[in-house]
Amino acid sequence: MKPKSDQQLMVDVQNRPDRRGIPINKVGVNQLRYPIVVLDRAHEKQHTIATVSMSVNLNEHFKGTHMSRFVEVLNEHREDMTMWTLPHILYNLKKRLQAECAHLEMEFPYFIERSAPVSGATALMDYQCAFIGDSLNGQDDFTLRVKVPVTSLCPCSKEISDYGAHNQRGIITVDVRGERDGRPEMIWIEEVVEIAEQCASAPVYALLKRPDERHVTMQAYDNPAFVEDIVRNLALRLQNDERVVWFRVQAENYESIHNHNAFACIEWAREAQTSNI
Amino acid sequence: MKPKSDQQLMVDVQNRPDRRGIPINKVGVNQLRYPIVVLDRAHEKQHTIATVSMSVNLNEHFKGTHMSRFVEVLNEHREDMTMWTLPHILYNLKKRLQAECAHLEMEFPYFIERSAPVSGATALMDYQCAFIGDSLNGQDDFTLRVKVPVTSLCPCSKEISDYGAHNQRGIITVDVRGERDGRPEMIWIEEVVEIAEQCASAPVYALLKRPDERHVTMQAYDNPAFVEDIVRNLALRLQNDERVVWFRVQAENYESIHNHNAFACIEWAREAQTSNI
Amino acid sequence: MKPKSDQQLMVDVQNRPDRRGIPINKVGVNQLRYPIVVLDRAHEKQHTIATVSMSVNLNEHFKGTHMSRFVEVLNEHREDMTMWTLPHILYNLKKRLQAECAHLEMEFPYFIERSAPVSGATALMDYQCAFIGDSLNGQDDFTLRVKVPVTSLCPCSKEISDYGAHNQRGIITVDVRGERDGRPEMIWIEEVVEIAEQCASAPVYALLKRPDERHVTMQAYDNPAFVEDIVRNLALRLQNDERVVWFRVQAENYESIHNHNAFACIEWAREAQTSNI
Amino acid sequence: MKPKSDQQLMVDVQNRPDRRGIPINKVGVNQLRYPIVVLDRAHEKQHTIATVSMSVNLNEHFKGTHMSRFVEVLNEHREDMTMWTLPHILYNLKKRLQAECAHLEMEFPYFIERSAPVSGATALMDYQCAFIGDSLNGQDDFTLRVKVPVTSLCPCSKEISDYGAHNQRGIITVDVRGERDGRPEMIWIEEVVEIAEQCASAPVYALLKRPDERHVTMQAYDNPAFVEDIVRNLALRLQNDERVVWFRVQAENYESIHNHNAFACIEWAREAQTSNI
Repeated sequence: MKPKSDQQLMVDVQNRPDRRGIPINKVGVNQLRYPIVVLDRAHEKQHTIATVSMSVNLNEHFKGTHMSRFVEVLNEHREDMTMWTLPHILYNLKKRLQAECAHLEMEFPYFIERSAPVSGATALMDYQCAFIGDSLNGQDDFTLRVKVPVTSLCPCSKEISDYGAHNQRGIITVDVRGERDGRPEMIWIEEVVEIAEQCASAPVYALLKRPDERHVTMQAYDNPAFVEDIVRNLALRLQNDERVVWFRVQAENYESIHNHNAFACIEWAREAQTSNI
Repeated sequence: MKPKSDQQLMVDVQNRPDRRGIPINKVGVNQLRYPIVVLDRAHEKQHTIATVSMSVNLNEHFKGTHMSRFVEVLNEHREDMTMWTLPHILYNLKKRLQAECAHLEMEFPYFIERSAPVSGATALMDYQCAFIGDSLNGQDDFTLRVKVPVTSLCPCSKEISDYGAHNQRGIITVDVRGERDGRPEMIWIEEVVEIAEQCASAPVYALLKRPDERHVTMQAYDNPAFVEDIVRNLALRLQNDERVVWFRVQAENYESIHNHNAFACIEWAREAQTSNI
Repeated sequence: MKPKSDQQLMVDVQNRPDRRGIPINKVGVNQLRYPIVVLDRAHEKQHTIATVSMSVNLNEHFKGTHMSRFVEVLNEHREDMTMWTLPHILYNLKKRLQAECAHLEMEFPYFIERSAPVSGATALMDYQCAFIGDSLNGQDDFTLRVKVPVTSLCPCSKEISDYGAHNQRGIITVDVRGERDGRPEMIWIEEVVEIAEQCASAPVYALLKRPDERHVTMQAYDNPAFVEDIVRNLALRLQNDERVVWFRVQAENYESIHNHNAFACIEWAREAQTSNI
Repeated sequence: MKPKSDQQLMVDVQNRPDRRGIPINKVGVNQLRYPIVVLDRAHEKQHTIATVSMSVNLNEHFKGTHMSRFVEVLNEHREDMTMWTLPHILYNLKKRLQAECAHLEMEFPYFIERSAPVSGATALMDYQCAFIGDSLNGQDDFTLRVKVPVTSLCPCSKEISDYGAHNQRGIITVDVRGERDGRPEMIWIEEVVEIAEQCASAPVYALLKRPDERHVTMQAYDNPAFVEDIVRNLALRLQNDERVVWFRVQAENYESIHNHNAFACIEWAREAQTSNI
């Protein structure tokens, strides 16, 4: 085998014309783990670790995209990941990759210090979150996703039983977009956690001492909620928050009496509601 | 605590009126594992095990749905899961749960006996598949999903290197809907596997003897393909299959030179194409 | 590049001598999915799908093992996987791969038809199981693993609260070896499921109608159990089963008041106990 | 239901005597996510997020352990997790939970800035690591686990094919214990990464430009290695490092020509070797 000439080495295979005439909706990288810094309502900044997916469209004229540029753009921005900086990243992805559309999704755990309800003992609780950015046909969208673990206690089980009621860990997933005067509006992860917990039977904590355990046990028994109740309570709360222009909420229970889960889901857009009038 | 009266025990909490005025898009069960029987092109029937999600809509007037009925309906139909029987399941879900819409998704591994390309040695290869059924506003849709593992060899790496070329396992995910004269048309899992393998660098096998390994090594080197090439090749093949009215194809490579993946995705609908004329 | 000669193609690279002088404990394949047939106490046979790991040792004299032979051996035996046939598979692996030790592990879901406790409504419940076979220094060992989902209700929460008690889905994992007169002795998956369920607060079911839900709710409240209680109850039961010569039992609760789990584990061997006398 | 008296609320159910006479090997919490700070060879400290498992033994006299204390101990130490501080955590767990043995396992991603081999372009690479601490019968053990993704290229495929060679991403898992003069001795994550990469066909990177891709493609082709070769190379390297008293190394390849993996494993202890002389 004879070594390639310098000219061969310069060949940009991806840049070659493609004659199949087929545009590609999304091409990029995923399952990339990267440390990022996000805003923290209480402590200004929080270091966390994201699993990242980034993609752009590819028009029908080119054979391939340049995958390494995704990592370069991410690396330049990793110290400041917020709803304010995501549009810049999307813009840079489009520019560097000569694309019209860009999509970015970063999932990460986020920690909030929580005090147990009676003893006040503090520990950190983890919430799996995601920032989802879309730049499509000149419009940028930012979606915040927060997964909030909660306790749910079954209203039916409580009502039909002489004592007790089955309850379980559930996960509430909130996808939400905020807007004010046509511009993206900040909604804090901490706010979503608070609202979601209030829509279930009780919050869950990393650390509970005995009096706390007594408290949350009775709190859950006093607030039975189906997955249906949880998503409806949440929908009401979010519809009444004037910043919110779109949401999808899902509640999923790891049923304690089954080996499968129960779930419910509501999707809503303010525009759609208004246009019905 | 005094035992509940019989009347209390008859209480159907789910059936109570709900005054929040909020309809629910989807409510049901998921992560339910169940044995099912599906059609097998070579052997008529194949026993497999599905992970099932089933849901219906819930209008704003009722507090909850009746989760146990999902399992009852599934259990009645499990011996015969095909694109021909799914509409009956969806119909039964709607009827039993007094709903307008129903959704069903069952993921399962499917096995096909494959012969190694030179030695002819046979073994079973697994393909993760899904049947996805939607009954929405009076229209039933059936989508087949097949995940096909393949070898992909990087065209850029081959071209710029004096010898060798990085290659890796990739997964092609095909979601496809068939139709003829306005009615659902059967597309076999086996057909999708064949098409997908022809669009990558080489198929993968469970069992390869030495001459087979030589064969697939050189086959991959002779057919370099980016994820972009794979989805375009697939799109062309599916667009030319007149049964196909909609598809989404995705290729994802477990890059051998990175710890992250590369992916590409194309979605297409025949109607949309036609309406452009 | 000139094609390799026939002699080159005959080269068995794996069979070459190795001069590093380092034996390998285990070499083989894993994450291989394969359909198998296992014994079913009620229906004689059950079709299921295993995720398989197979390995042998490799002495210091050879460069590599022959991976394709693992799949060939598995394929020959897949229609009859029991504690009686596993020794044959291990024997064949050792013979075909010229090894002294062989190890095999196959995880699979197993289904049992269960009747709801009051209504008698039937459905299939899934239990994740594994057959683990070891042939080491001339001794064959067979271990059965069964994972049994259960309800556990917290004794502390019940005692300290005026009403209610937190409860959750838990998974009990039983690894067990049976023997009689120095020979392996059959223990059914069905037996392990029964014993494990009796050691927790209540069984879980795939299908429960309203009177059943009332029943299991109160059953769990009447039988509070920590993870510590569950593994101790199980240990007592298994120690009193004279077939059992070794076990490891683990209970893990998806705590409904936390986003983490609680677990407990006991390992025990009859020999060790006897030798203490 | 009448409220419980204050005395009832003081009841420590866990502390009650247990009459089953069965000690428990391990009881504790797992799947707990928590932010921690670990040592970084280049930057002194690194913020990361661990998935934590902590347990102690429980003697036969007590009904239960006190789960909340695990979280309290973790929370006190989270800012300084090293092989030097782990013994303190284990000591505190034993003291707070009145136990003789304690076990701790924290898995976390760790990032190292890597320069591409030709262009020098830098980006962060993630390595999944774990600290494993055992305090058992008065002896403390610390094990470092590092998972290193690499490229492996098949020697057999290269030799028997006229051109090309199948290659793939593989994961090398190194568990290692260091000691000097009977005391634990530091081994850096960075050192394990370097050694492991040198034992495979080529390293993997987060960011490679075209000349880098050419370089690693040919580097892999020039250094074919079976999983057997990788673990033997690693074993030799670690046996020759006089700090190392025990290791277990495993290599697992996501075979590009199969849908299953190949793996090999070697376990070794310096004591055992010495005692053979």
